[in-house]
Amino acid sequence: MSGIMRIGRLELRVLDLEESIHYYTNVIGLEETGRDKDRIYLKAWDEYDHHSIILQKSDRAGMDHMGFKVADVYALEKLEKKIEAFGCTLTRITDRTRLAEGQAVRFEIPTGHSMELYTEIEQVGTSTGTFNPHPWPDGLRGIAPHRLDHTLLTGDDLETVTRFFKEVLGFHQTEKIVTVDGETMVGSFLSATNKAHDLAFVKGPDNKFHHAGFFVDNWYEVLKAADILSKNKVQVEVTPTRHGITRGQTVYFFDPSGNRNEAFASGYLSYADFPTITWTEDKIGTGIFYHRREMIESFSKALT
Amino acid sequence: MSGIMRIGRLELRVLDLEESIHYYTNVIGLEETGRDKDRIYLKAWDEYDHHSIILQKSDRAGMDHMGFKVADVYALEKLEKKIEAFGCTLTRITDRTRLAEGQAVRFEIPTGHSMELYTEIEQVGTSTGTFNPHPWPDGLRGIAPHRLDHTLLTGDDLETVTRFFKEVLGFHQTEKIVTVDGETMVGSFLSATNKAHDLAFVKGPDNKFHHAGFFVDNWYEVLKAADILSKNKVQVEVTPTRHGITRGQTVYFFDPSGNRNEAFASGYLSYADFPTITWTEDKIGTGIFYHRREMIESFSKALT
Amino acid sequence: MSGIMRIGRLELRVLDLEESIHYYTNVIGLEETGRDKDRIYLKAWDEYDHHSIILQKSDRAGMDHMGFKVADVYALEKLEKKIEAFGCTLTRITDRTRLAEGQAVRFEIPTGHSMELYTEIEQVGTSTGTFNPHPWPDGLRGIAPHRLDHTLLTGDDLETVTRFFKEVLGFHQTEKIVTVDGETMVGSFLSATNKAHDLAFVKGPDNKFHHAGFFVDNWYEVLKAADILSKNKVQVEVTPTRHGITRGQTVYFFDPSGNRNEAFASGYLSYADFPTITWTEDKIGTGIFYHRREMIESFSKALT
Amino acid sequence: MSGIMRIGRLELRVLDLEESIHYYTNVIGLEETGRDKDRIYLKAWDEYDHHSIILQKSDRAGMDHMGFKVADVYALEKLEKKIEAFGCTLTRITDRTRLAEGQAVRFEIPTGHSMELYTEIEQVGTSTGTFNPHPWPDGLRGIAPHRLDHTLLTGDDLETVTRFFKEVLGFHQTEKIVTVDGETMVGSFLSATNKAHDLAFVKGPDNKFHHAGFFVDNWYEVLKAADILSKNKVQVEVTPTRHGITRGQTVYFFDPSGNRNEAFASGYLSYADFPTITWTEDKIGTGIFYHRREMIESFSKALT
Repeated sequence: MSGIMRIGRLELRVLDLEESIHYYTNVIGLEETGRDKDRIYLKAWDEYDHHSIILQKSDRAGMDHMGFKVADVYALEKLEKKIEAFGCTLTRITDRTRLAEGQAVRFEIPTGHSMELYTEIEQVGTSTGTFNPHPWPDGLRGIAPHRLDHTLLTGDDLETVTRFFKEVLGFHQTEKIVTVDGETMVGSFLSATNKAHDLAFVKGPDNKFHHAGFFVDNWYEVLKAADILSKNKVQVEVTPTRHGITRGQTVYFFDPSGNRNEAFASGYLSYADFPTITWTEDKIGTGIFYHRREMIESFSKALT
Repeated sequence: MSGIMRIGRLELRVLDLEESIHYYTNVIGLEETGRDKDRIYLKAWDEYDHHSIILQKSDRAGMDHMGFKVADVYALEKLEKKIEAFGCTLTRITDRTRLAEGQAVRFEIPTGHSMELYTEIEQVGTSTGTFNPHPWPDGLRGIAPHRLDHTLLTGDDLETVTRFFKEVLGFHQTEKIVTVDGETMVGSFLSATNKAHDLAFVKGPDNKFHHAGFFVDNWYEVLKAADILSKNKVQVEVTPTRHGITRGQTVYFFDPSGNRNEAFASGYLSYADFPTITWTEDKIGTGIFYHRREMIESFSKALT
Repeated sequence: MSGIMRIGRLELRVLDLEESIHYYTNVIGLEETGRDKDRIYLKAWDEYDHHSIILQKSDRAGMDHMGFKVADVYALEKLEKKIEAFGCTLTRITDRTRLAEGQAVRFEIPTGHSMELYTEIEQVGTSTGTFNPHPWPDGLRGIAPHRLDHTLLTGDDLETVTRFFKEVLGFHQTEKIVTVDGETMVGSFLSATNKAHDLAFVKGPDNKFHHAGFFVDNWYEVLKAADILSKNKVQVEVTPTRHGITRGQTVYFFDPSGNRNEAFASGYLSYADFPTITWTEDKIGTGIFYHRREMIESFSKALT
Repeated sequence: MSGIMRIGRLELRVLDLEESIHYYTNVIGLEETGRDKDRIYLKAWDEYDHHSIILQKSDRAGMDHMGFKVADVYALEKLEKKIEAFGCTLTRITDRTRLAEGQAVRFEIPTGHSMELYTEIEQVGTSTGTFNPHPWPDGLRGIAPHRLDHTLLTGDDLETVTRFFKEVLGFHQTEKIVTVDGETMVGSFLSATNKAHDLAFVKGPDNKFHHAGFFVDNWYEVLKAADILSKNKVQVEVTPTRHGITRGQTVYFFDPSGNRNEAFASGYLSYADFPTITWTEDKIGTGIFYHRREMIESFSKALT
């Protein structure tokens, strides 16, 4: 009820713009909706807004910022005040700083990541339209996810960042991982919607990016996604499996700059009154990779 | 942002309680969580609250009421005022009128159906629990849906009832069907969440019940559901197909009293800022049954 | 062990060649491999031989002939003798009568249909090749079945035609439908391989064609096939469902000339020593459409 | 056309009979059909013969023998002569040496493994029966595969063992892996049917067992199989993925004695005239694990 509607956009830093465009449009299968100096704007076929992914040319990989779309300016103003009251410094991003975007407020969360809130962005519509639409469009390329689904970040103080998202931004915590003694939170899954997560954190270095998840319809589409990755010689880090956490079905892989991507399907529906599911750290392997039941070394280490 | 969290419960009138219990527990695969004089309380395995379906012994089939769970008492009070301001008469249902329930407010919507809003109900938890849970429980029976998903009702004045749900209860309209001249709304799909619909109306007699939809994971589970229905000699009205509206995958069938049920999978995710998808009445066949592309006579006529 | 390897080809009569080419290449998604005066040759992407479907321009729809590929000339000679001994008249089709084909023998079976046996046909290979192949090719169009799977024909004397296929051609009967008194066979499902059927007959007029089945991977591909048919405004006669007979998953539709087609998935594997499954005519609805459990009038009547 | 109908049975040595019974009946979900001193007989729900798996109590794991069912005694006699002509020594297993079995002939193949051919075994029928059957039975437990699908063995001289299966037993080779110089065969996939493989060999020590594959319907059933394995704390060696070779979908795991098992779905259909697909050893990772594209150390080393 805070007015945050959804994960709206993710700006990723990439090393080689042309190679990244090829990957995000032909392998992931997003649509390029615009470009300006040093930035490419992309959307998934089932998204209405002008873009959900921005690629920023940079000399290092990682996340520039993650943006949440807010219902209206009233909700946005109210959230701004709460963010400042929590002690974060707000920066105002002016209208059209980036293509098709209105104003936004930018701030740093306790884990050091930059976030933005905004309510204005051009709506360009989906590939199926809104008049007697077909259920899916012709001419899809690559994995062709429906939408950007969620982001996973790392940080040190997960208690504080969780408190920030719950108390200030009105998220609910769907799941958490705690040390066996119950003293320390080492994983936190947060939702502003009815999704199993819109944003998650695992214990690790501050201000690092773990992965961006794209939503595909079901487990068979996860298989097809993995097939497409292999055909395109994309490095698959984690072959198709189920998560214990979120129950989702997944395959993990890397973009050309080393930013981790995921094709994700079938997580449960969550509601604000659902209790937080608790995982203990000794079961983290099962929580993350339900079939393997142990961690994969690169999964903790490869961060951008 | 109105505070309505979800479709919480549906009270259905059934003719023969024992036969209905058999059907809802063994064929649908709900769990009986309680019974009192003339009522049976049931929940799906993946729901936390004490019940989502109440079967009420009656001499005629149909819906007694549909209830929405509200986030808290403040939201509930605010909604009460708006409902009264709209001109509906509120009745107060006292604590424990029905098993495991707190207070509720009951009112009649413009189509004549009874609705309730409430915030208190005992939470009994899911079959997988909240501590290092498995993704699905052992011992499931029948179709074993995750949850009650949505309800479809009929009524005459869909403009007014839509306005009521949008303006008073804060729903967004995800899709609508209009006459070819665009003058009259003959179908209205409404969501209080990120689901494609929590409640829908099609043009028809006031105060009639069309169906209750139960959520299953995917298209393969729709096949298994249809297989289970055939094994149990349940009448299948509409064999597995896709909806144009919601893109969902579906099978329709009847409970022993003639109340229509649906196993539903895979509708899209919706947000409050998404434009309403418009179907014209000449395409209603395609909208409802995307493969058949024409209506089924019983589908309009069999109401309870 | 008779040497019949598989259903090799089907020559269908079509009314409008251009319209049929569009349908079979863009909607079904076959590949055109050649054409000569009045005939178009097509193959599915996963077939090795030059063609499995031949479209013959004609003034009426229906089947010209169905051909089975035989392991070698010795097996072919032995089969010829047995066919003649059964009382059928053989015609010899000379080399290159049709594109890419060697010699064939043609004969009329007891239901009046023309069949051919052959062993020589050019092998052009699949779209994935035979050297370190990917599991599926890029650039598929339409339904894109793996192969021609089976044919269903109608005829009057199913006992005799079944005896012919079993005794002369070495098929095994996987399933049969009999009248309730057990006296008369009204359906016969025959396999020369480990498939649930390569050819089937249902009681009806002699020398009529009921449908050609194309194999798709699974139930989700049946959904996608049905979606593609609706997008292309192809008439869907039977929306996705399961067969009791063969357990297969299916959708039925018509080519532009009225020849019925099927996208079929997941039938069981059969072996020559498996007993014949028996259906009684009172359960024919369930046998054919497991969910609907009753016949569809057009399904018996629309024959070409 | 040699008369070999299928992989009929596999006798595995297990260390602890009770623990193995629990695993094969509750986790794999086979049905126990009999036991005698030191042996348990099991079948899958969709198999007709009395058993396909025999567990033999032993002090070491591994395969006692693999048996192929032959069409009739004439074919069996002819095969015996060809086996002896190849230079193998035949032993005759008398009627009822094992439960429900008739006579068999036993012989050692060039890789040192024991094989049997037989034609007589009691037929007990499937769980769905042969009279107006449902597509699947109620009361399935665990993974509940349809049938034993194939076996993979290791051996040193794959050229000779391949020649034996092709020339003597009439198999066709569907795929092979060769060294990059094309000189040496290091993998050989052989089919006596229309399946992608009934038996396969990879280069390794003679007379060792790599795995037994059980057939499940589709990729979603592979997911459910992996879920069931995790719930039962069975070690999953290879989480769900696709094979390049056979295109099948798979999960690998171990029985309590260390014998590797597989749940396998969706391999292609093969015919005797299909060319052998060739993989070069540098692509063996992709051939075996299409998504990972590299070998897993345990997969080559863990043999019984």
